[in-house]
Formats: sequence, C-alpha cells, structure tokens
Amino acid sequence: MRVTVLGAGYMGSAMATVARMRGHDVRLWGTWLDDALLDATDAGLPHPRLRLKLDGIATLRSPRLEEALRGAELVIHAVNSDGAIPVMTKAAPFLPDVPVLSVSKGLLVSKAGTMDRIDLVVPESIGKPVRFVHAAGPAKAIEIARRVLTWMAFAGPDAKACALALGGDHLRVTTTDDIAGAELCSALKNAYATGIGIWDGLVGKDAHNARAACFTQAIHEMRLLVEAAGGRAETVHGAAGVGDLHVTAAGGRNRAFGERVGQGRPAREVAAEMLAAGELTEGYPAIATAWRFSRERGVTDVPLLETLNAIVWEGAAPGPALAGLRLST
Amino acid sequence: MRVTVLGAGYMGSAMATVARMRGHDVRLWGTWLDDALLDATDAGLPHPRLRLKLDGIATLRSPRLEEALRGAELVIHAVNSDGAIPVMTKAAPFLPDVPVLSVSKGLLVSKAGTMDRIDLVVPESIGKPVRFVHAAGPAKAIEIARRVLTWMAFAGPDAKACALALGGDHLRVTTTDDIAGAELCSALKNAYATGIGIWDGLVGKDAHNARAACFTQAIHEMRLLVEAAGGRAETVHGAAGVGDLHVTAAGGRNRAFGERVGQGRPAREVAAEMLAAGELTEGYPAIATAWRFSRERGVTDVPLLETLNAIVWEGAAPGPALAGLRLST
Repeated sequence: MRVTVLGAGYMGSAMATVARMRGHDVRLWGTWLDDALLDATDAGLPHPRLRLKLDGIATLRSPRLEEALRGAELVIHAVNSDGAIPVMTKAAPFLPDVPVLSVSKGLLVSKAGTMDRIDLVVPESIGKPVRFVHAAGPAKAIEIARRVLTWMAFAGPDAKACALALGGDHLRVTTTDDIAGAELCSALKNAYATGIGIWDGLVGKDAHNARAACFTQAIHEMRLLVEAAGGRAETVHGAAGVGDLHVTAAGGRNRAFGERVGQGRPAREVAAEMLAAGELTEGYPAIATAWRFSRERGVTDVPLLETLNAIVWEGAAPGPALAGLRLST
Repeated sequence: MRVTVLGAGYMGSAMATVARMRGHDVRLWGTWLDDALLDATDAGLPHPRLRLKLDGIATLRSPRLEEALRGAELVIHAVNSDGAIPVMTKAAPFLPDVPVLSVSKGLLVSKAGTMDRIDLVVPESIGKPVRFVHAAGPAKAIEIARRVLTWMAFAGPDAKACALALGGDHLRVTTTDDIAGAELCSALKNAYATGIGIWDGLVGKDAHNARAACFTQAIHEMRLLVEAAGGRAETVHGAAGVGDLHVTAAGGRNRAFGERVGQGRPAREVAAEMLAAGELTEGYPAIATAWRFSRERGVTDVPLLETLNAIVWEGAAPGPALAGLRLST
C-alpha cells in the first residue's frame, strides 16, 4: 500500500515508521518548516526529534507535495493544528479520494467565527470534502516507533480501513464512528494535562491526591464538553479520553509547563522560555481554546477549566485559585 | 462530636488527624497489632507510619475497646480487610447505633462461600446490622493529613452525615448511594494498579503508552465488574474508580510490587521480601480475589485481570503475557 505522511515532525516520522513496519511503501513529506529535520535524516542521521533512523522511508521536501500525494492510497495528516489549513490548502488540488488519517490535536476557527473540529473546518476552508479519520488515544510518538504496546482509537467512516492498514501487534487500533468525541478529547487533554502539572510545581511530588482529584474532575468536564459537541461519553471514558489524558499528564511538555507555572512563574514567560528551547507547549493555547469553546457551546459547569484559564491567561495565583477549586458532585 | 477510630495504622491515624482538624473529640483505638505504633505516639514521637505527631488525640490500646466506643457519635473503621471480622466481632457488643465510616479496601468471603463486600459480610458474620458508609476515592493518608487537596466519595445511606462531620477545605467529600460500586472500586484498584506497575519493570520508564492503555482497559473491566455487583458505571468514572486507580498506580507499594514482578522475579518471592520489610502488598492477594470474584459473578470479558492473575499467581512470564493482551473494543 502506498502511504503518504504529511508533516515530518515528531508524530509524522513515528507514523511513517509504523507504516513502514507494516510493509507499506512510505513517503514522508516535510512542510517548509521541516527542512532541518529532513537534512538530518537524508544524511543518514537519526530524526532529530524522534531520535531514530528512518530506514526505507522516502523523504520529500515541501515543493514536492504533488509528487508526494500521487498514487497515495492512505494519507496521514501529521501537521500541527496551526498548519492544517495552510498545508491542506496546498495539498487540495493533488489530494486523492482516499482516507486521511489525522493525528493533529486541536480546534480551529470556523468561517462562522467559532472554534470547531479540524475535520469540519479544513474541508470548509479548502472548499473540498476530505475523508478525515481522527487518530486519538495515548500514543507518544517515540514509544509507538519503539514498539511499546500502544492503544489508538481511530474515529470516522473510514476508520476500519485505516486500522487495517496500520494496526498490529504493538499498535492496537480500535475504531469508532464518534469523530466528534475523539477530536474533542484530543484537543482538550492538552489543556487539562497542564492543569494536573501545576500541582507538581505548587506542592511538589507529594500531591498525588490533588493530581488524581483534578484528573477525575478533568474527565468529568471533558464529558460535558464532548457531549455539547455531539460526541459520546463512552469516548471520553475510553482510550481517546482517559487514556490520552493519562499519558499526557504523566510527563512531557504540557506537564513541564504546568509545573513551572505552579512554581509561581508567569505563564507567558514560561511559554516563551520553552519555545526558545524548541519545546512547543500546546497546553498553553489549548487552555484558551478550550475555555472559548466551553463558552461558545454554553457549557458553564467547568470549574477546573475556568480556574486554569484564570491562572494561565488572567494571572491568578495558582495556590489560592486551586485551593478554591470546586469539584463536581 | 465524639469520633472513634478503630485501627491505628497509616489510614486510621490520618483519619483521626482529619477528625481532630475539624474540631472533634477523637479517640484512636489500636488493634492488638498496633501496640508498637501507639508506644511511639504515646512517647510524643511522630506516628511511625504517618510520620506526623498525633496532637490532641486520645489513644487507647486494644483491651480498651468498650471504653473507646462508649458515647461515640461517629465510628471510623480503619482496620485492614483481613482484620474487619475479628475487630468488628469484638466491637459488636459495644457498637452504638451510629454511622461507621469504613476506609477498608477489599472483599471478604461470605457465609455462602463467595467473595462479597465488607458492608454485607461483616453484619452477616457478627449477627448485627452495621450502618456502614464506604469511603472511596484518591486519598493517600499522608497527604490527607498534610492538607493536600483530596477528593473522597462517601457511599451509603449515612454518607451525608459523615461528609458533614469530616469534609472541609482540603478534604472534599462527595456522596453517593452506590455503596456497591464504591466498595468494588476500592477493592479492584489495588489489583489493577499492580498491573500498571508491571510495565515499569518490563520496559522501564518509557512505557507511558502501555501504562495508559492498561489504565484505560482497567477502567473498562472495573465497570463490568461493578455492574455485575449491582453498582453503577458513573461511580467507576468518578473519584472512586478513575481517581483512586490514578493515585494507586502513580506510586506506592502496589506499583513497586508490580515493577519487581515486571523485572521477571516470582511474585511470591517479591511479596515475601516486601512483607519482611514491613510493606503490605495488597495488590498481590487483590488480584486473586478480583479474579475469583469475576468468575463467581460470570464476568468473562476481563482479559487484563486474567493476564495479571496468570503472571502473578500462575507463573506466566510478564513479557509474552502482556504482549498478547487483548484490549476491549
């Protein structure tokens, strides 16, 4: 099978590695921001973010998008959410009528001016239907590529075809038709994982009870937000919600961002510092996006999200704000 | 309010501390196994397990059980599950008709010879009704006592009275009538947390995907087991289930036990070694108990529990057993 991966970053290179493991003919296309990554892999070095060599995978630079997509039987969209519209606009004329498995996490602004799912906003924006399948679930790229047992949930009408192409012994794929629930979970978990990380900065490592309380409250609020978007509770209680929040809160950049904010440092300063070190803190904008989404959809009973937004975007002191956190009964 | 805590171990001394913080008249009664702990606190030293001083709390040794219970308006049962019947049998003649808040986690063998809830087996065994309220949720004792934000879920007809007596700024208590669900969650999470820990021994720290996959699968299986016992899914998806599994899997003895088993050491040997070091590994027997419970109730779709039982009680090698783990769709 001919598989084209759009986006040669951390997750794109991991998904290319998985597709290659399954015996596919894999092309990895890099955006105009990915040249340095492909310079390294083309020189036979490990991928700078994934830290693994990409053996047997053809790499193509950004001007070769048409060639990358020609004859593709499966496209994997691994551009981050900010890049989704620019990349898919360029890809649209060459995009074959095949499933597009998206590992992008986030919400975008629709033409109506409200936050909405990538699988809805991108087709509206590029003026062409896209057979999006959303890939959710707890899947750190490096671990997928290293064959650690991983559970992904693919959502959408073409989910089963994608699962058949990519699933296997180490990457277990379940499928659902609840693309609304799956995408919302992927977008929301970055926001909530940041909040769980704040406790580490505030109390130190002995804040297990508080972290677990916020984890529980996060799942509760994610369910309300998912249901408001037409998704289902079962998606939140499965790999897309509980699983992905677990992996995201356990470590990584969003947790690290939260920890520094919990130590009392201004969020804007921490985000700038991490960006300068090449670390994208998705949780920082994800909190504003999720908070905006909750208000647009009229979901008012989200006290943890409200508290996180107050801390990260309105300068509230983390200690008093979290001490006063209301938990749902 | 006069509060009597039965059991002067880690959790009993923490709950006594909470009751004292709330301004109650607190008596902490130690079982015949707790003398060494009370020797320390009576000498003005910190409690050896809790590592905090128990100021303002009256301590009573095991022969003074009648005196300990006299005039109690709330009893907190903090004896471990193995001790529940012996202690409650001795307490029965002196037990006033007041709520008994139980923090014990586990299942006991009923007169019918099957595993069942403590709140059902104890009254049957001692021949007297007990107004049990079960305390579930993510609550490490040391953190409750240190005023870290904690969410507990009290379950039973008298849950609200117990919440009123003990809840406050740092200990947030929600209430439910689903005592079946809450008790099952408390009993099952020790088994599943052990399983999540096995990955740390098997793969090392970069097994976040596998840990999260098992966390998700555990919640799924706990829901099936809770529903088979007459409990509700919402309890599993709240503080009693998701929250308590989170805190238990994040650290502590059950996770440590799992990690050593994951390194390939026989479970029996690890349990003996930890016991010799004074560490009770509840997860070890909890796996056998949960597995037996699942068979007695006819719940067959619990592949993670089956795998854990095979590893811990039947000597299956952790690597191959977990590599073949079936995840629920």
